[in-house]
Amino acid sequence: MSLVTLVEYRDASPEVQAVYDDIMATRRVDWINNFWKALANDPTTLTRVWESVKQVMAPGALDPLVKEMIYVAVSATNGCEYCTWSHTAAARKKGMTDPMFMELMAVVGLANETNRLANGLRFPVDPQFKP
Amino acid sequence: MSLVTLVEYRDASPEVQAVYDDIMATRRVDWINNFWKALANDPTTLTRVWESVKQVMAPGALDPLVKEMIYVAVSATNGCEYCTWSHTAAARKKGMTDPMFMELMAVVGLANETNRLANGLRFPVDPQFKP
Amino acid sequence: MSLVTLVEYRDASPEVQAVYDDIMATRRVDWINNFWKALANDPTTLTRVWESVKQVMAPGALDPLVKEMIYVAVSATNGCEYCTWSHTAAARKKGMTDPMFMELMAVVGLANETNRLANGLRFPVDPQFKP
Amino acid sequence: MSLVTLVEYRDASPEVQAVYDDIMATRRVDWINNFWKALANDPTTLTRVWESVKQVMAPGALDPLVKEMIYVAVSATNGCEYCTWSHTAAARKKGMTDPMFMELMAVVGLANETNRLANGLRFPVDPQFKP
Amino acid sequence: MSLVTLVEYRDASPEVQAVYDDIMATRRVDWINNFWKALANDPTTLTRVWESVKQVMAPGALDPLVKEMIYVAVSATNGCEYCTWSHTAAARKKGMTDPMFMELMAVVGLANETNRLANGLRFPVDPQFKP
Amino acid sequence: MSLVTLVEYRDASPEVQAVYDDIMATRRVDWINNFWKALANDPTTLTRVWESVKQVMAPGALDPLVKEMIYVAVSATNGCEYCTWSHTAAARKKGMTDPMFMELMAVVGLANETNRLANGLRFPVDPQFKP
Repeated sequence: MSLVTLVEYRDASPEVQAVYDDIMATRRVDWINNFWKALANDPTTLTRVWESVKQVMAPGALDPLVKEMIYVAVSATNGCEYCTWSHTAAARKKGMTDPMFMELMAVVGLANETNRLANGLRFPVDPQFKP
Repeated sequence: MSLVTLVEYRDASPEVQAVYDDIMATRRVDWINNFWKALANDPTTLTRVWESVKQVMAPGALDPLVKEMIYVAVSATNGCEYCTWSHTAAARKKGMTDPMFMELMAVVGLANETNRLANGLRFPVDPQFKP
Repeated sequence: MSLVTLVEYRDASPEVQAVYDDIMATRRVDWINNFWKALANDPTTLTRVWESVKQVMAPGALDPLVKEMIYVAVSATNGCEYCTWSHTAAARKKGMTDPMFMELMAVVGLANETNRLANGLRFPVDPQFKP
Repeated sequence: MSLVTLVEYRDASPEVQAVYDDIMATRRVDWINNFWKALANDPTTLTRVWESVKQVMAPGALDPLVKEMIYVAVSATNGCEYCTWSHTAAARKKGMTDPMFMELMAVVGLANETNRLANGLRFPVDPQFKP
Repeated sequence: MSLVTLVEYRDASPEVQAVYDDIMATRRVDWINNFWKALANDPTTLTRVWESVKQVMAPGALDPLVKEMIYVAVSATNGCEYCTWSHTAAARKKGMTDPMFMELMAVVGLANETNRLANGLRFPVDPQFKP
Repeated sequence: MSLVTLVEYRDASPEVQAVYDDIMATRRVDWINNFWKALANDPTTLTRVWESVKQVMAPGALDPLVKEMIYVAVSATNGCEYCTWSHTAAARKKGMTDPMFMELMAVVGLANETNRLANGLRFPVDPQFKP
């Protein structure tokens, strides 16, 4: 059940199949998850988002596991069910242990709490934080 | 301008001063930021939140800089102005460089985008993600 | 399964039935969706919300399909499952095609991304935008 | 500075002035706050929203102070600066003391924390909660 | 199905069992809900969050039912399914009737509406609200 | 005041200047707004986000003004101050009148209200919406 058709590999255009092939090769997996099958209804969006994910999540100034955990933090904050499941799986594959996951969630929970204390009490930003 | 009085050290009860002292000693700073001065209107909450921050943000399965960047990710996602300024300052103090910060923001932005693609297209979680 | 009883037409008071009749007549449908059956537990709220929906979603300076797509954009941003399904169905009924829906989602995704880049990097609003 | 003109009483149409008069009479105040002056650009919306506020915030099954505190809780959760200031002022006028406000914020903070622990760890709702 | 193992009483360490015992004694129930079974993967977090809930939700300047309804308001605003079910059940146990619940939801809905009118029209906070 | 340096045209690398030139040419303006000056700290992100904006906001199945109003709707829902100012200015440039803006905000407000009524009352999606 989905708001758009999920485009299976066998039914996809060559353009979409090429993106699917790149996803599977880059991630060393042999299947495509529903996120991409849904985006494939618009090959331009599929290509753009995949290129963005490939660029942003590649090793850089931050390591890939840290990036994946940041992704989980944002997804849990936004309450995105699909993203929480899929990026937690990705983070585990990159080495996140259960203690790391629980600690990540503790930080996410605390940040959401103190964000609202600040937004509710409405004190000004200290000048020391604005160098 | 703030929705509650900001409790300065010199006006604080001994109970609050003790928390302030612990904050300054733990963080090796000689001033108290507005977040704590606002919470000090309720010493029980001040103590509880400070003990939580001290426990959650201490080194553990994740390193303190990673935790601080997760804090920034959540704060930017929620649009908390105070928290974004204060935790970015904290992350920089712990070693976050400009390239790391820009990359952090790129992940946060992308996660917020794909969270909404998933929430808008409403495809099911792949069984492979639910082991 | 619901947090309140869903009030069926046959069990409804004449006051609630009158609202149900108006909903079905206005929308040219022969059934009532669960949103209204839940609100019917409080006839005053049912009436107020229905009158608001009828007024706000009527043709005006914006056309009804544009309004319905804006509704979907907000619902996807907030992660409201029920509203995403129901307003996407409504938008399709008013003429939204699959390419329009995919493009709508692309805008929603991008806006959510750049909203967080702005909220995370905290630069000031350009004076040119404040005429 | 505002995205729309703020409609002052002296410049308002009789229709808008009548709503302004009702706001001042109902709230026993002699000025109109910016929220209504902005909505007045669309008299239909001004009237609809004011009638909704008057109906929803009136005494009923919940007392008006409790309703006002719930309003503050939602506004702090959403990070709405204007609403947090205005509804905290309203709640104080109805009897909210500083200890009540601090306790309200403590609940809001905690709820935001545990909401994310639940959204991040993704355990099912216990059947006992679905009677 | 859950992102972490749910720790049952019989499989828990004495430290976790002690927290479970305190939860059941404090709430006068004979079972543990999934929220705590998930947190139990990290006994330190379990203890900290339980102590926070016990402290924050205890009678104080606000009565426990009001606090529970504030919790529901925040959970509905954030779209947290688990929390909405569990805290609505808790609020009902403390005396929330159906009319109170419907009225609570009416306030939550309205606050979410006016929060966005304020955030979208961007008028300044009236000086009268900043005493 | 900003969390990163704003990169002015005269101080920018040729790579960044080329993007700035493309932004000004595409939009027929002679200045660069702060959003891009902040992103320019990471030329890869600057390029990626600009290419995404250019692609997504171009005429397609939806007209550019509708897309710009959807952008405003998302920005108001998320409470992004910068984005609300900048995209409202952009929408006005593309033809949005005051009555259209007020009507847009009315839809955004109402959708945020009914999203929370659905998320708070937790009734199931009607099968009729899942064809």
